[in-house]
Amino acid sequence: MTYDLWYWNGIPGRGEFVRLALEAGGIPYRERAREPGTDETTLIEDMQSARKHPPFAPPYLVAGKMTLGQTANILLYLGEKHGLAPDSLEGRLWVNQLQLTIADMVAEAHDTHHPISASEYYEDQMEEAARRARVFREERIPKFLDYFERVLGGPDRWLAGGKDWTYVDLSLFHLVDGLLYAFPKRMGTIAAHYPNVFALHERVTALPALQAYFASGRRLPFGEGVFRQYRELDAA
Amino acid sequence: MTYDLWYWNGIPGRGEFVRLALEAGGIPYRERAREPGTDETTLIEDMQSARKHPPFAPPYLVAGKMTLGQTANILLYLGEKHGLAPDSLEGRLWVNQLQLTIADMVAEAHDTHHPISASEYYEDQMEEAARRARVFREERIPKFLDYFERVLGGPDRWLAGGKDWTYVDLSLFHLVDGLLYAFPKRMGTIAAHYPNVFALHERVTALPALQAYFASGRRLPFGEGVFRQYRELDAA
Repeated sequence: MTYDLWYWNGIPGRGEFVRLALEAGGIPYRERAREPGTDETTLIEDMQSARKHPPFAPPYLVAGKMTLGQTANILLYLGEKHGLAPDSLEGRLWVNQLQLTIADMVAEAHDTHHPISASEYYEDQMEEAARRARVFREERIPKFLDYFERVLGGPDRWLAGGKDWTYVDLSLFHLVDGLLYAFPKRMGTIAAHYPNVFALHERVTALPALQAYFASGRRLPFGEGVFRQYRELDAA
Repeated sequence: MTYDLWYWNGIPGRGEFVRLALEAGGIPYRERAREPGTDETTLIEDMQSARKHPPFAPPYLVAGKMTLGQTANILLYLGEKHGLAPDSLEGRLWVNQLQLTIADMVAEAHDTHHPISASEYYEDQMEEAARRARVFREERIPKFLDYFERVLGGPDRWLAGGKDWTYVDLSLFHLVDGLLYAFPKRMGTIAAHYPNVFALHERVTALPALQAYFASGRRLPFGEGVFRQYRELDAA
């Protein structure tokens, strides 16, 4: 079965966490909103079409007759179905728990540039963004990275502790990638405190299973999504 | 086995979604941070103690040797283990997906009064809160409630579509309860558009399995948690 992944075209966004799992797992999928002749309207119409389990927002994955929404929920399914998560229930719940913690940080990263409204321009909430970004840089980035550093426990470990990567390692890689893009000064200042997190980032970057994807041009550059490069929101 | 639930004492907060499932499921648990002689420090020390799978934040549930964090993850476990979710994988993923959508709205509801920083006083972010709350009232509440109304599809339905409630029905009940507390004027204005959502709220309120809990005094009143009653943040 080839999965249909639906996500906004043009940005990595939350869709990228799903893409990385599909790509690293060698799982066939089509990215429907990036096919020729489709645009944002195609996606919105598909999302609002009658179906048993409608998604609230992209990304969503169509797996035969089943539609799955919510990034962490899609990954929970792919992890179990395609061996991208531990076999045990305890291991799968642990990976899901970590994924949800990553999702929380992703939402906070988004709100640094849109603290008032996702539907208003950044330029109309710049002052609030400056305040929120400062708190994110100074309090929230260390709090989350301290946690992942502690969970990893060593520079050669995967988050779930086994000998193979799981989908949440790919997600932490992408989260760190996004933080490096959006907050390069801040990340430069604190990087030395997180050797385990940065070692994981390096190992996922070098993962053989992802090299074809990285070389393909399918991995979209950061831009107008969750992680944005507004210089005034970054500081050492 | 009696579960240990750890959550901040004194507020319903995110812990309430777990409590409702435990209570309605008739599942034995101890609320550790509400036992005599414990305080916030007890909780923080326990949370930071060495364990295989440390939680990032409360609530977390200790189930024998296993510790589970993240509200939706705890509920995923309880739902499967205690029959509070559908038996099928598809059904369980659907309930998890809806729970994550509720979690998204809960996070947004929290940010109406703390749009800049959870660690700063409301009084120091009142202007930003007023802006964010307006967007939440006018755009976000309708967007989320439209979705749940559509998913329900009728005034006598449960979210997962079966003949019995699942844990996500309890969560939607509590979400609506919180919105009614925090935004009474706004909810009064729009209630008539959401007959299915409000019918579900009524049915959970009357659920036989929850009456002992409601009468016990264990269900904490709203106050300083996710849902707060700041009159200036509400409007019709």
